[in-house]
This record gives sequence, C-alpha cells and structure tokens, in this order.
Amino acid sequence: MIVVIRPNTPREKVDEVIQEVQRLGYDPRPIFGTQQTIVAAIGDERTHHTLESLNALPQVEKVMPVQKRYKLASRESHPGNSIVNVDGVEIGGEKFCVMAGPCSVESEEQLLTTARAVKAAGATILRGGAYKPRTSPYEFQGLGKEGLRLLDLARQETGLKIITEVLSENHVEHVAQCADILQIGARNSQNFQLLIECARTGKPILLKRGLSQRIEEWLLAAEYILAHGNPNVMFCERGIRTFETYTRNTLDLGAVAIIKRESHLPVIIDPSQGCGRADLVRALCGGAVAMGADGLIIEVHPHPAEALSDGQQQLDFGGFSGLMNDLQPLLTAMKRTV
Amino acid sequence: MIVVIRPNTPREKVDEVIQEVQRLGYDPRPIFGTQQTIVAAIGDERTHHTLESLNALPQVEKVMPVQKRYKLASRESHPGNSIVNVDGVEIGGEKFCVMAGPCSVESEEQLLTTARAVKAAGATILRGGAYKPRTSPYEFQGLGKEGLRLLDLARQETGLKIITEVLSENHVEHVAQCADILQIGARNSQNFQLLIECARTGKPILLKRGLSQRIEEWLLAAEYILAHGNPNVMFCERGIRTFETYTRNTLDLGAVAIIKRESHLPVIIDPSQGCGRADLVRALCGGAVAMGADGLIIEVHPHPAEALSDGQQQLDFGGFSGLMNDLQPLLTAMKRTV
Amino acid sequence: MIVVIRPNTPREKVDEVIQEVQRLGYDPRPIFGTQQTIVAAIGDERTHHTLESLNALPQVEKVMPVQKRYKLASRESHPGNSIVNVDGVEIGGEKFCVMAGPCSVESEEQLLTTARAVKAAGATILRGGAYKPRTSPYEFQGLGKEGLRLLDLARQETGLKIITEVLSENHVEHVAQCADILQIGARNSQNFQLLIECARTGKPILLKRGLSQRIEEWLLAAEYILAHGNPNVMFCERGIRTFETYTRNTLDLGAVAIIKRESHLPVIIDPSQGCGRADLVRALCGGAVAMGADGLIIEVHPHPAEALSDGQQQLDFGGFSGLMNDLQPLLTAMKRTV
Amino acid sequence: MIVVIRPNTPREKVDEVIQEVQRLGYDPRPIFGTQQTIVAAIGDERTHHTLESLNALPQVEKVMPVQKRYKLASRESHPGNSIVNVDGVEIGGEKFCVMAGPCSVESEEQLLTTARAVKAAGATILRGGAYKPRTSPYEFQGLGKEGLRLLDLARQETGLKIITEVLSENHVEHVAQCADILQIGARNSQNFQLLIECARTGKPILLKRGLSQRIEEWLLAAEYILAHGNPNVMFCERGIRTFETYTRNTLDLGAVAIIKRESHLPVIIDPSQGCGRADLVRALCGGAVAMGADGLIIEVHPHPAEALSDGQQQLDFGGFSGLMNDLQPLLTAMKRTV
Repeated sequence: MIVVIRPNTPREKVDEVIQEVQRLGYDPRPIFGTQQTIVAAIGDERTHHTLESLNALPQVEKVMPVQKRYKLASRESHPGNSIVNVDGVEIGGEKFCVMAGPCSVESEEQLLTTARAVKAAGATILRGGAYKPRTSPYEFQGLGKEGLRLLDLARQETGLKIITEVLSENHVEHVAQCADILQIGARNSQNFQLLIECARTGKPILLKRGLSQRIEEWLLAAEYILAHGNPNVMFCERGIRTFETYTRNTLDLGAVAIIKRESHLPVIIDPSQGCGRADLVRALCGGAVAMGADGLIIEVHPHPAEALSDGQQQLDFGGFSGLMNDLQPLLTAMKRTV
Repeated sequence: MIVVIRPNTPREKVDEVIQEVQRLGYDPRPIFGTQQTIVAAIGDERTHHTLESLNALPQVEKVMPVQKRYKLASRESHPGNSIVNVDGVEIGGEKFCVMAGPCSVESEEQLLTTARAVKAAGATILRGGAYKPRTSPYEFQGLGKEGLRLLDLARQETGLKIITEVLSENHVEHVAQCADILQIGARNSQNFQLLIECARTGKPILLKRGLSQRIEEWLLAAEYILAHGNPNVMFCERGIRTFETYTRNTLDLGAVAIIKRESHLPVIIDPSQGCGRADLVRALCGGAVAMGADGLIIEVHPHPAEALSDGQQQLDFGGFSGLMNDLQPLLTAMKRTV
Repeated sequence: MIVVIRPNTPREKVDEVIQEVQRLGYDPRPIFGTQQTIVAAIGDERTHHTLESLNALPQVEKVMPVQKRYKLASRESHPGNSIVNVDGVEIGGEKFCVMAGPCSVESEEQLLTTARAVKAAGATILRGGAYKPRTSPYEFQGLGKEGLRLLDLARQETGLKIITEVLSENHVEHVAQCADILQIGARNSQNFQLLIECARTGKPILLKRGLSQRIEEWLLAAEYILAHGNPNVMFCERGIRTFETYTRNTLDLGAVAIIKRESHLPVIIDPSQGCGRADLVRALCGGAVAMGADGLIIEVHPHPAEALSDGQQQLDFGGFSGLMNDLQPLLTAMKRTV
Repeated sequence: MIVVIRPNTPREKVDEVIQEVQRLGYDPRPIFGTQQTIVAAIGDERTHHTLESLNALPQVEKVMPVQKRYKLASRESHPGNSIVNVDGVEIGGEKFCVMAGPCSVESEEQLLTTARAVKAAGATILRGGAYKPRTSPYEFQGLGKEGLRLLDLARQETGLKIITEVLSENHVEHVAQCADILQIGARNSQNFQLLIECARTGKPILLKRGLSQRIEEWLLAAEYILAHGNPNVMFCERGIRTFETYTRNTLDLGAVAIIKRESHLPVIIDPSQGCGRADLVRALCGGAVAMGADGLIIEVHPHPAEALSDGQQQLDFGGFSGLMNDLQPLLTAMKRTV
C-alpha cells in the first residue's frame, strides 16, 4: 500500500501515519518528495488489516493499493490455461464449446425439439432455465423442479450436457443433481453465500459477470469459489449496463482479452443476454471467437415470438444452424474446432 | 404496449403482427401514420403474456410498454405516504429517523460505546453488520451469530432498535429474531429468493438500491416483498456506480424525489456508503434532509482508522454529534423533528 | 508517480525502469517489498514528462500518479472561497444567486415577460439561449444574433445581468459583447480552444460539467481558463449520464461538496437540465441549497408545453415564484440570502 | 409520437391533450385502453414542433417517439453500403483499411521512421496528431502547423494518405489543406459548429464517438455533416466510458454491428484509445475484423515508453507488423483484403 500524505502536512503528523502503519503490522517506508510525502507500507495486503481505513486520518490524502487482491484466480498463480472438464466435454482447450437452448424451459416438446436441433447444429451443452430471476414478480418464474426433470430427460435422450441457473442456496442440492454446470446469474455474481454453496458441490460453475461489475470484482467472486476448494470455474461475459438504450446491455468483448491476461480460467460469451436482440447475435458471436473466447452460450427457441421470456433475443433453429455455419471460417482462423 | 412496425412494411406483414397480438390475448388497434404504422395493444400487460417477444418478428422495429410494471409499490395504488412502524419508532411520517452505528460489529466494547454515543446524539436505531458481504474472500466477513448476540445486548442496554443486514436465505430466521429491521444490501437487491424469504418474516425491510439499478427495477424489487404480503418496505439509496473515481459511489439524491413521486413508501439515505468518504458525509446528510428523505443511516465507529471494514467512511463520535447539531436548522426548515 | 513492477521481475529489469525514470528527469527511489517492488519517482509531475508512458514496458504493472494535476483551481492554492463579481452581482459569497429564464430565446414577448416574472420572484440574472446545441440538425437551433439583441433589450429594461451559451470560437466576440456571463455547455466542456478563447475575454465563465466528466477533468477544464489568465470561473453541475431512464440525466448533488473541498471556485446547480423534468425541479433546488451550492440556474417559460426546446423541464411563472418561496426556509437555515 | 396519459385522468383533461396535439400540427388519434389512455399523434416528427414539450402538462405521463430522428445516415435511406473514397483509397468496400501512426507528431525523424514502418507492414493511411486535445493545460498540446508540415512531408515521401485531428473551427482550413481525412475527436463529437465547418470542406471525415454518446446521438452527429452536403462520413468507435478502471475506456465492438444495421456508412475501430493499453490491442483488432469493421486506426511509435502522449497504448514497430500478420487469417475468413 502507498499512503499519500496531504501537501504541507507537518512532520509530526506524518510520523503519526508512520506509527499507525507500523501498529497495523506493516513496515513503513516514508519518502519525502518535492511536492508531497508518501509512506510505502511493506507487507502482504491479503493477510493484514487493510490500510484503506487510514483515509480516516485528516492528513491522509489517499491510500493506493499496490498488490492484486486475487490470487488463485490470477495468471501468476497458474501460468498455463486451465481446462474445465464437464463430464468429458473440455472447456478452455483447443475445442470451442457451444452451449445452446431456450431461455426458459417451457414444456417437454419445446425443450426436446430444441435439444435435438442444437445438437444437430453442433452444440455439446444444452442450456435452459428452470428457475428464472425475473425483474417483476408478475413475470413467468420458471417451471422449477419440473423444468429440471425435463432437462434430465433431454440429457438422456440427446447426450448433451446440461447447464442451468441456480438462484438460491436452498436449490443448490437438487439443481446440482440434474446439472452438469451450475450457472450463477449476473444478479447473483456477488451473492457470496450462493457462490460458496455452489463451490461445495464440486461441479463446474459458470460465473456470469454482474451488471456493473469491475473485472477485479469478478475475479474476486471467482476467488471465493476457488478458495472454497472448487477449481472448475468459467467466466461468462453477458453484457454490462451502460447509458446505451438501443441494446439491453453492452457486450464487453474486451473482457475476454483482459481475463485471458489476468487469469487462467476459461471465458464464455453470452451474446443473447449481451445485447438482448436476436439480430445482433451473429456478429457478436464472430467477435467472441476472434477475441479468443473459449465458447458461447446462445439462446435458441422453436418460436421466439411466443417465448415466455426474452423472445426478442432468441434465435430460431434456422438462425442457429446458420450461425454455426457462419462461424466456421473464423474458428478455423483461430485454430479452434467445435 | 405499442408495437412499432418498420417503415415500408407491406400490409400483409402488418396483419401478421395484428394477429399475433390478438393471439397473445390483447385487442389490437393499428394506426397507419404518415411515416410509420403502429399497433396499439389493449389489455393489462401485468396479467398477459408480454409482447416484447414480438421484437423477434423481422417487421417489428420496437415494442414500447405503456403501463407501469409495479402496482402495490406505486403512488397510484396508495396516494398517501406509508408509515412503517418499527416497534414503536415510526418511519415515513413527520419524525425524521436517524440510524447509526458501526459498519461491522467488531466487539462488545466497540458496539456498546458506539450505541451509547449515537443514542446520546439522537439516533433511535442502531446499525451494525454481523454478516458482511465482502468483495474479497480474504476480507473480514463479520462475527456472524456472535455479532447478533452483541446487537441484542446493545438493544437491551440502550433501547435502540436494531437494523442489520441479512445475506442468506438460511440466515433469515435467526437474523429476524435479533433484528427489528432486516437490511437487504445493494448486492442482493435483485436476489429475489432472499427478498421473498425476508418478506415472510413480516419484519420491516430496508431495501438498498443495487449498484446500477434503475428506479423501475428497484420499485419492482419492493413489489416482490409487497406481493408476498409484507407492506413494511423502506427504500435506501446508497450510491450508484458511475465513471467517477473520486468517490466510491455517486449518491443519487434525486432518487428521493423520484421515489416520493412514484411510490408511497419511506426513503432513507445512506451517505456513508453513498460516497465512501467521511469528509463528505455531513454535506450529503444536509442534502438528504432538504430533498425530503425520511431518514439517514450513518456509519459511526470509535476509531475509524482501525475499523475492520470501511474505516474511511465512518465518522467518529465527535463527528456524528456535530453532524446531528448541524442538521437541526435544515430539519426545522423542512418541518421535521428527530 | 509510483511505478509498480510486476511480481517476479528480475533485478536487472527493475534497474531498467530505474534508469528510465532517471532519464525522464525524476529521482528514482526503489522499494523492494515482500510481494512486489515499486519505484517512487520524485519530481514535479506537472513540469516533467509524464511517466504513464512507462506502462509500455512489459515489466511495469501500473503507474500511479500521486500529485493532483490541477493547481490554480485547487483549494490548496487559494484556501478561501473565490467570489466572482458579475458587474456588481457577487457569486460565491453569502448571497445566493438565482439565474432564471427560458431554455431558448424565442421572441421579444416571450423573453421580456419571462425576464419581468423571474426578476419579480427574486432572480438577479437572466438566462436564455441564443445559440442552441441540438442533438439533431432538424431541431430549432436558436435565434442567433437576434436572440442576443433581445437579451440586451431585456437587460436594459430589467437590469438583470445576462448569461448565455457560447458554442463557437467564432461567436465569442459578439456573444461577449452582450453577455455578462459566458456559459460553456456540457458538450463543450472539453472543447479547449473554446475555453481558451472565452478566457481571453476576461468575462465570468460558467463551466458546465460534461455528460460523463470526472471531477478531476472538470477541474482541469477550469484550469485551462485560469491558466489563460481569467480567474472568474464558476462550475455548473447539470446532471451526468447514467443508466437511468426515468430522468434525462442524474443530477450529482454530491459534486457540490467535492468541488467545495477541492476548489475555491463557486458552484451553481442546474436542476432543469439535471433531471429534464419540471416536476422534480423543486426538490432538487432544495437539495442544492442544503448541499452548499452558491446558486441555481433554472429554466422558466411562459407556456412550457409550447416551448421550442425542452418544454418538459421548464417551469411556468407560478411554478418559479412558488419555488422561490419554498426555498426561503432552507436558505435561512443555510445562512444564505437571495 | 405516442402521448401516454396518466391513469384516472378525466375525459376533459384528455381532450386538452388532444387539442394541444392538433394545435402543434399533428393528427391526434386517442385510444382508450383498459388501464390507460394514449394519444397517437400522426405527422412527421422531423418537420413539426416536437411533442416532448407536452410532458409539461400534468396529465401527461410520458411522450414516446416512434420515428427515428436520423434520415440521411439511415440504412433505410441508402440500403447499400457507402464507400468513402480517400484520394484513391476506398473505405467501406471489400478492402480492409489500416490507418496507423503515432499518437502525436513529435519530430521529423519520429514521424518518417514510423510512416515507413507502418507502410511496410501494410497500412495505407498515416495517422498523427498535430493538434492534441489534452485533459490538462500542462500536457503537450501538439506541434500545430509544424506537425502538419511534417505530415505533408511524410505523405510526399511514402504516398500514404494523411488523417489528423481538427480541434477548432479556426484550424479547419489549414488542416484540410494537409489532411486527406479530417478526424473529429471524441470530445468534439457534439461540437456541431465544428462538424458543420468540416462538412463544408468536402473532405472525408472520421467521426469518433463521444465518451458517453448513445448510438442515436452519434448517428445524428453524422446527420449534421450529411445534411450540410458532405456524404463522406466514417464512424470511429474508440471506447466508451464505463465504471471499469482496468482499461481507460471500454471498447464497444458491438457498435460495429449496430451501425452496420442502422446506417450505410463505414465503421473504423480505434483499439488504442479504445482500451488505453498496448497489451490488449492485438486481441481487440481481431475482434474488430470479425465484427465486420471496415478498418482500424492504430497508434504506433518508435519508442512508446518515451512518447510525449499516451505511450502506454502505442505499439512499437515489431508489435505492429506482428499484429498485421496475425490478422491475416481473420481477414481471409471475413473475405477482406488489406
């Protein structure tokens, strides 16, 4: 930590800061500059009392952290890429992973026809919400356990792996019995109790980025899972909230490059949530491939206009298989295979 | 809902939209303008299938909702102001409510000396975190049940009512045994399962605004609680996330006026979280009073520089009692008493 | 500046940084910590080559500035409050300044009736746009020189001082002949050539904050004016752009407290632009007074529903005089007089 | 326009709105719904008085525009892609255009060595700032006319076309004598007088997106240029401002797809400004190609660590030529050639 002292602070007030730094367990190193004095505090910020509280002293102008706050999630701690193994399907390696399926599980027919269609087009993992976090209490909240049963059925019939969202600590156990990957939604990206509960299942976890989450906070959310003994974490960028109103969210494709630089864990892109408009999904998928993402999670529905949730952002079957074809040249260029 | 048709769409494609609107249960009323056609869909949007999925049709340019999505939380449904009664302390009426106390409960001495100090200065409700949602897993996570025991002790000694945060559905029951008000933190503002579980206790709930939550979403989060039978909801503005780096958050004082216009429920301001800097708290409290807020929740600590969390934004005892004095003229001007 | 070296960097690579710091004119002071090495660079950052370019070296993790970048605008350089004298009207002292008038100057009758009404209600400065920066080229662009003529007429008749926006370097001269205060709009807040040109007139300048301008950048924009020899700068907060859609902008009242802390210059609040809705103006004005703002600039129009620009945010005459009455108790509480 | 009436408004108050709509030149069509009444106003919003001012009436809840506000920039007005011809270099067609060069022109040697290097690697257009808009008045402001002279020299020697920023209406004439493309920077994206002045030169214009500019506002800024008779407009996405602090800006690659959908004009990506970090440029360029951008503008400097501006985001020569090689497979996949 660097503690910056206000200009024109008398020496005895600087000494007060030096002593406080020492008392909190760090080795203080003052540097008296031409314009301003700083106190560098030597010590591991992750195992000591934070020094940010020193901002409470009137002679302190600001406290600047030097170290990264995440450790297990960092590229420094694990220089190679981590590969997450989902019951035989590897994510984060040379294979590019496509997850697809409806926003919500609505019925057996809806789910199974979709499962067959996305499998035929190249997906290896089936998505589908059984529990839906909806902005309004009057909106469709998902089929719950019946939805999980249908997902299980779809797995048995198609062999696709299953990813589905878990909303509640009390659901973790039964969702984990059905799901191959537990999805943590954007609204729960800092619901730390839920992260810990999911970590304990040992199942692979897809951690969506919060609506206005900084990259550092996202890495720290992953750190919660890793620190609770579960290394199978995948990041999922799904759009951030900005001032733009043309799209529901602004997909931050640059996050792929940042996560790849800062961490060893796989990154998946959700273009459907990422923009909230089916007509932009194809282009965003191309961008995701070229940025080096490890996979996509795409919403597909037999009749988007009649979907019970988010119809405006779901592709129909033709749209999805067309997309898969269109991505081939880019995947080849990036030396990835589906 | 208004369904806007793309310019130059042939009539039969407009008819397709009209039929789809009808099939989804609405009464369609097309209007053929000079530049563009719209289809107004008559029917209650809260009890029918949403029409936003019609965006999936290529001839649809956009779908614009007309109605408000919240009902029980709206001023229309309850023209007068609601007063929340916290075991005898009324919030939302003529009395201005001050909640104060440490960010985290750290020890018996820390909590009790603070409780006595804030009571002496005029607070009627004691705040203190027993369970702390921390960005990093390596940061102090709160004393848990021991923290709750200390809060209970402070209530017995001082008579102050207790507000404390609940982080997990699994904690709701035992937190509710200690707390007079359940606090939902910003990160859980759309953790709908937690909202529902808290609603069921019947306890007053302080609902903090999410980091990038729109007012409409905040009202809908309250609607979850109200729709589950608990009318005792208070909004708490605690700063939104913006591009600014001078402060941790940007306190949106204008939200007071918007909530007062759109809803009947009380609004509390949290200036400590709202800016993350003790040196700005006094001015923000003044602004909150003048905007018509119903109360404040302020972080106070015996020695902020040594606090285990958020020391930089906590006032010391002198700072808090000075603040309470300074607010008097503004409270009088607003015809409020503490 | 603090140059943070990546973990595990070999000593000779650290030395490279040390030499580069020296070569760029600073005195380097390396500190070898337990986890990471930093190089503190001693020297005045405002008169040397910036060190941020060192981020280009692969062994550098980040470069953190220590010093503030603004000087003449800073409270350190001028501990007392600056008072701007507008031809006899003082802004920034004990008197609270109210500027009011139409968004755009539309006609002689519109302007003169408004001028009389706002003067009667207590305003001392008349606002009115002659040149209007409009988002679309198809919108009303202002009356231009005819608008200036009408503003001059209104001054002669009422004795009110005139504030009007200047959009173009080529207009500075003739706008300055009419205006007592030059207004720099939000879209031009970093149009540095315009700032310099306006500075040269010596006239008082109202500097609106950019739509997503950080406080530091705003202070630096003022620094441009001050550094070009014009000390008569006033800040004007007029709402920042956020994700919120209920209001056009989010008025950042906390900016008042920050500017008062960091600078000696007056701060004015524009609640009309700040929210874009007439129905919120009254509450926001109250908040502005209580936060310690030095004045208000309020849009007033004889018939808002028929205004040629921004009718939705303009008060009518009754609304304005009611507002002035309502603010009295808060002004008294803050020891300000109009 | 759709005028939404507040619930429970008596009929005569609805009639007032209907009459006002008529008086402002539209044909009003009221629709009485189950929950709410709306008045659809038929007429071309671009040639009539805006109806947003009706928000000033208390019985009006909101006014919703139906039509798009831009016309010449819209895809509807020009279904094919526009190709901008820069003195023989075509932008917006099958060829992918690479513009490269230093952030600032610093010296003859710096500029000419860079020009030769970027030409050798495949660039066809040389960038370089002669006039620099800098946040602080104490930062390097560019070489001005001497910079323009050096750019001219570089063109003569290498045959590269020149793009350089124009900051001031008073510079337009002499900058246009040197530049093949006039660049409008982000801070001037709504400096409409400058846009108009540049439009009048007839030169191709690269219009950067403002820091927090909505797509609609960006299209309308282009509309200013088009409406003043200059069809040679290119959009340039250069990062938007968000809450993220890891990067200077957040590059919005999705903007490419939106602009391609809404407009016929070319789109260029600036990855250097877009993230402010040289280490992310390569990945972002790949994403830009795959999203369908028509070109890139990249900062390249002989010694980034010693650059007078923005060294942290500039590539060195090796970095740039490596990038050009790396992009080949993606360009081929997208059927583009350099």
